[in-house]
Amino acid sequence: MVITISDPLDMHLHLRDGDMLEIVAPLSSKTFSGALIMPNLVPPVTTKEAVNEYKIRIEKAKKEHTFTPYMTLFFRSDYTKEFLEEVKDDILAIKLYPAGITTNSEGGVSGFDLEELSSTLNAMSDLGIPLCVHGETGGFVMDREAEFIPIYEMLAKNFPNLKIIMEHITTKEAVAALDRYDNLYATITLHHLYITLDDVAGGLLQPHLFCKPIAKRPEDRTALLNVALGAHPKVMFGSDSAPHPRNSKEAPGCAAGVFTAPIALQALAQLFDKHGALENLQSFVSDNAKRIYGITPPSKEVVLEKSEYLVPEIYENSVVPMFAGQSLEWRVVRAG
Amino acid sequence: MVITISDPLDMHLHLRDGDMLEIVAPLSSKTFSGALIMPNLVPPVTTKEAVNEYKIRIEKAKKEHTFTPYMTLFFRSDYTKEFLEEVKDDILAIKLYPAGITTNSEGGVSGFDLEELSSTLNAMSDLGIPLCVHGETGGFVMDREAEFIPIYEMLAKNFPNLKIIMEHITTKEAVAALDRYDNLYATITLHHLYITLDDVAGGLLQPHLFCKPIAKRPEDRTALLNVALGAHPKVMFGSDSAPHPRNSKEAPGCAAGVFTAPIALQALAQLFDKHGALENLQSFVSDNAKRIYGITPPSKEVVLEKSEYLVPEIYENSVVPMFAGQSLEWRVVRAG
Repeated sequence: MVITISDPLDMHLHLRDGDMLEIVAPLSSKTFSGALIMPNLVPPVTTKEAVNEYKIRIEKAKKEHTFTPYMTLFFRSDYTKEFLEEVKDDILAIKLYPAGITTNSEGGVSGFDLEELSSTLNAMSDLGIPLCVHGETGGFVMDREAEFIPIYEMLAKNFPNLKIIMEHITTKEAVAALDRYDNLYATITLHHLYITLDDVAGGLLQPHLFCKPIAKRPEDRTALLNVALGAHPKVMFGSDSAPHPRNSKEAPGCAAGVFTAPIALQALAQLFDKHGALENLQSFVSDNAKRIYGITPPSKEVVLEKSEYLVPEIYENSVVPMFAGQSLEWRVVRAG
Repeated sequence: MVITISDPLDMHLHLRDGDMLEIVAPLSSKTFSGALIMPNLVPPVTTKEAVNEYKIRIEKAKKEHTFTPYMTLFFRSDYTKEFLEEVKDDILAIKLYPAGITTNSEGGVSGFDLEELSSTLNAMSDLGIPLCVHGETGGFVMDREAEFIPIYEMLAKNFPNLKIIMEHITTKEAVAALDRYDNLYATITLHHLYITLDDVAGGLLQPHLFCKPIAKRPEDRTALLNVALGAHPKVMFGSDSAPHPRNSKEAPGCAAGVFTAPIALQALAQLFDKHGALENLQSFVSDNAKRIYGITPPSKEVVLEKSEYLVPEIYENSVVPMFAGQSLEWRVVRAG
């Protein structure tokens, strides 16, 4: 069996910088047509210059592959409308992190004071710049996303013309919120479609599956699968592929993040195939994102075939992917 | 401030075997008067000979300290009354593991068929041998203990004269079950009084705090604290101190277990002191166990003083304790 995916898009991707960027950029650019690039570098990407310089580094690191890095800014509540007008054409969205909630998010938002956020969010709304949100409170790890839903609702109600993307959703509560507001959208990762907390900590502890938001309960995964496999029109694929060097994953104080970029399309094909939903993969992994963001990525056809693919144990002796050393049932036979 | 604890008892202890036994036995025997020794060796302890040979190895490894190892058998549903009569004086209890639920529990019980369990449990009841149970189902990791409560109830109802100890309880559901049946008792660990899942996976991942049953929610810890600090008469201290070599804790596939034996009394004193409950520590850590099990351990006075104690980073370059490299507010100044 063979399928062709046109212009696959990864609407939530961490490419990092420096040596790690050199390793991971070509692994995304090989099979994806474009990706939304997260801005949580050190320091975070908060200026027009930083956006464009980072974009140049990505363009160089992606090698010969056709691939558009859609850039983001790190949300700050003091961005002026003048600044946003200037930077508008260089970015596709702005990413909001609650302070300290994940890797390199220390400079994020503390508290969600409507007064404080309004001027930037009104400007974004006027200029048509979507807001991507890492929606977690500082509460108990299993409750953080569900507790954040009222903040999503507050934002959705107060800024009805602002497109708000609930990033890497992991709960049935977030899935339910999707349909309550016209301007709420969501990305879903590969790993949250596959795993629950049981896979991370139900048997032996698996640091390579440890991520934020943490994988949740079986009924949460079921809710995510329903909208992803069903090609819900407001749901997009965003891998949240988040590489860390092996030595920082395989030690106490292991960083959060699952590295999935190079195996994402293969594993998605396997999952959609298993559930008899292959006809919906194109929407989930490209068409929905094109429509929601109004983008036209460079044309790329990716041909996948149902035959065994052995996932590498590690890339460049540095980054361990999800399914390392295991077999997937689908392989990429051509991309370009 | 100084307190004296008489005859401290650890009613759930893993001493392992071989090199690990040599390392950890003296660390328990130094400050505890006795401990209930878990039988999940490879192979599990299932014969009179194995009990007595293991006891001899422990007596040797504990060094010069006064310390009674109370032995247990690994539960098998085919133990006969004749066998139990023979082994009765060599053991204090029998430990039941569901198959595959934790370290070296592969030979445990599959399913909880009353018919199958009855002959052994009736014999134990007749002979007055308590049943210690690792109470978890094979369900979702956060639900396993709560799901097991109906099995505890089935056992408590059908064997009203059998003392049943719910080992290392971690949930408010188990705490609630305690008072519903006269013959249900419980042990609580040090680590479950201190941590929730947030401490294991809420920030960076902490393998040295990864254990089974996994640490639960804040409201669960509160329920445990209430009965431990309140000296509930059916609750005993059982550390479930479970040493693993550092290299097996600090790698993917990290084994479950927190090593607390050498710092347990100090950390308990800190906790009870912080909550203004020092007067109840003697009941929790000794008197309740003496009464419930009807034992008279060798006399040992342990004097603790409120002054800084720096916990070692590692013991014998092999086992990392809870609070490694951190300061506790209480130290042991004399034990003997």
